[in-house]
Amino acid sequence: MKNLTSVGLKYIDGKLLVLNQQQLPSQEEWIICRNPEHMYEIIKTLQVRGAPLIGVAAAMALADYVEQGANQEQVITAAEMLKTARPTAVNLMHCIDRQLAALAATNELTTIVDTAESLFLEDKDLCEAMAQHGLPLIKSGFHILTHCNTGSLVTTGIGTALGVIRKAYDQHKNLHIYVDETRPLLQGGRLTAWELEQAKIPYQILCDNMAASLMQQGLVDCIIVGADRIARNGDFANKIGTYGLAVLAKHHDVPFYVAAPYTTIDNDCVDGSAIAIEQRAADEVRGAKGAFGQVIWSPENAAVYNPAFDVTPTALVSSYILDSGLHSF
Amino acid sequence: MKNLTSVGLKYIDGKLLVLNQQQLPSQEEWIICRNPEHMYEIIKTLQVRGAPLIGVAAAMALADYVEQGANQEQVITAAEMLKTARPTAVNLMHCIDRQLAALAATNELTTIVDTAESLFLEDKDLCEAMAQHGLPLIKSGFHILTHCNTGSLVTTGIGTALGVIRKAYDQHKNLHIYVDETRPLLQGGRLTAWELEQAKIPYQILCDNMAASLMQQGLVDCIIVGADRIARNGDFANKIGTYGLAVLAKHHDVPFYVAAPYTTIDNDCVDGSAIAIEQRAADEVRGAKGAFGQVIWSPENAAVYNPAFDVTPTALVSSYILDSGLHSF
Repeated sequence: MKNLTSVGLKYIDGKLLVLNQQQLPSQEEWIICRNPEHMYEIIKTLQVRGAPLIGVAAAMALADYVEQGANQEQVITAAEMLKTARPTAVNLMHCIDRQLAALAATNELTTIVDTAESLFLEDKDLCEAMAQHGLPLIKSGFHILTHCNTGSLVTTGIGTALGVIRKAYDQHKNLHIYVDETRPLLQGGRLTAWELEQAKIPYQILCDNMAASLMQQGLVDCIIVGADRIARNGDFANKIGTYGLAVLAKHHDVPFYVAAPYTTIDNDCVDGSAIAIEQRAADEVRGAKGAFGQVIWSPENAAVYNPAFDVTPTALVSSYILDSGLHSF
Repeated sequence: MKNLTSVGLKYIDGKLLVLNQQQLPSQEEWIICRNPEHMYEIIKTLQVRGAPLIGVAAAMALADYVEQGANQEQVITAAEMLKTARPTAVNLMHCIDRQLAALAATNELTTIVDTAESLFLEDKDLCEAMAQHGLPLIKSGFHILTHCNTGSLVTTGIGTALGVIRKAYDQHKNLHIYVDETRPLLQGGRLTAWELEQAKIPYQILCDNMAASLMQQGLVDCIIVGADRIARNGDFANKIGTYGLAVLAKHHDVPFYVAAPYTTIDNDCVDGSAIAIEQRAADEVRGAKGAFGQVIWSPENAAVYNPAFDVTPTALVSSYILDSGLHSF
């Protein structure tokens, strides 16, 4: 496979490298992915995360497995295993299925590698396309609220929601970004803040429960979020907290945009009720953990409610920023 | 002053003792309050917190100062200083003003002590009265969402919102409590969880951004919160995140109750726009800190938005549970 490079994922001289997002921003640790089982663990433990990137990362792991000499049966078994690493983001299934379809059509294992390369490069182009289509929605002077991390760490390009923001900033140079910290895993406070810091875009971090107060004061011009799966009717799953923001946006008449590539749309999924929501470990909510350390502040065995995602009905979305253009369902 | 005891505040054999709430639930550390300046620091650093209790604690510190031999001028200076320890909760001003009024009426410093004793005992009775009035609102089998900590740590009795819940649990024995962790200082995840654990009331902690998902699924029968200041028209300030919950409750048709004693009502305040909102330090949002340790997960000098409170308009409140009965403004 040829050399390929993005902020969070690389293939260099036959080695597949993943930036460990659990360690950011305290440490930049690159993991050398050994095989598909290892990638399954890397995805499951959120060392790589974000709907588009986990799809591409899994595809690259499968391609690397082919280059290591795996046979067709081994590749198909590994592919099915990789698809189960996380249940909500459909990009994972989409990418692997595209590789398997190419294999079935040609019976050539090299198509697994070719497809991975295509997916990697295509993901970058999808970001550019979304950002271009999103541009007219953002005016100079806007204060934009975003949730979770949707930038160059979750795609091979500039990102989905954060990609739109970056492109708009490059054009206007006058934006202010409000970053939800995004408990429990703090993708906003850690990763989006880190990306904005590097891009020198002005921002403030807030706790998730502070967003309503900003909207009440008329300080938010629009909200842009990403998506992990969009159902056929436009209902979509995204990082927990997104649905609440959408309700608050409606109440305060704040435009609410969803930026996602076509790979996030699941036409097999009729509506939001069909999207599986992953429940995660209680310790994530009992405290916080990362390269910054580990703390538990709750009573030791406190019971916890910890869904990784929620589902927002399409009626609350002002517009979808897709790679094909602005869209309504 | 006679011996007085509550969960978070004690006067024993001439010593004023404050339970350090920043250290809970990891450690039970009692601070011996030396003088009014010391109490000012204790309040400012949230070692004692919660609108009703900071009022009583400040009053006790002033009474203790009298018992240490302070003269009238010193007492009045200390009183004015104590009133500025935190700007939002009006109970602080209310309690100190009651002591000063008693002093002005009698010119006897002992009235400062007598008034502190009365405030301590009265606060307990106010909790009982609120809980009794709130009882008819809670049915057996209810799932109740609450925010921040409003129990026996913030009053000298069973609490405001959490007092209503405890009383209802004693009667029904079939309630489930959803506890917002309440970033940034985690009063829910640390303190409310600790109180419910001790009272053996079933509960689950959730991150603040997960409450909307519970309401969307119809899993919340009502929300009960406390208040730090209620304006004459019913608008009220409470822990940041309360306003967002109230909007979400309205959207989902979930009853939204506010439990507070009359000492929280500020008749000098026409409406919510007149309530001062305290902005706190950036490090609170950049990470988390307590007896459990200290971690910073954000970029080092990340800019932060960190209001301690927000203001909820009265139109979003289903009913106020006051010590005088259920109330509408």
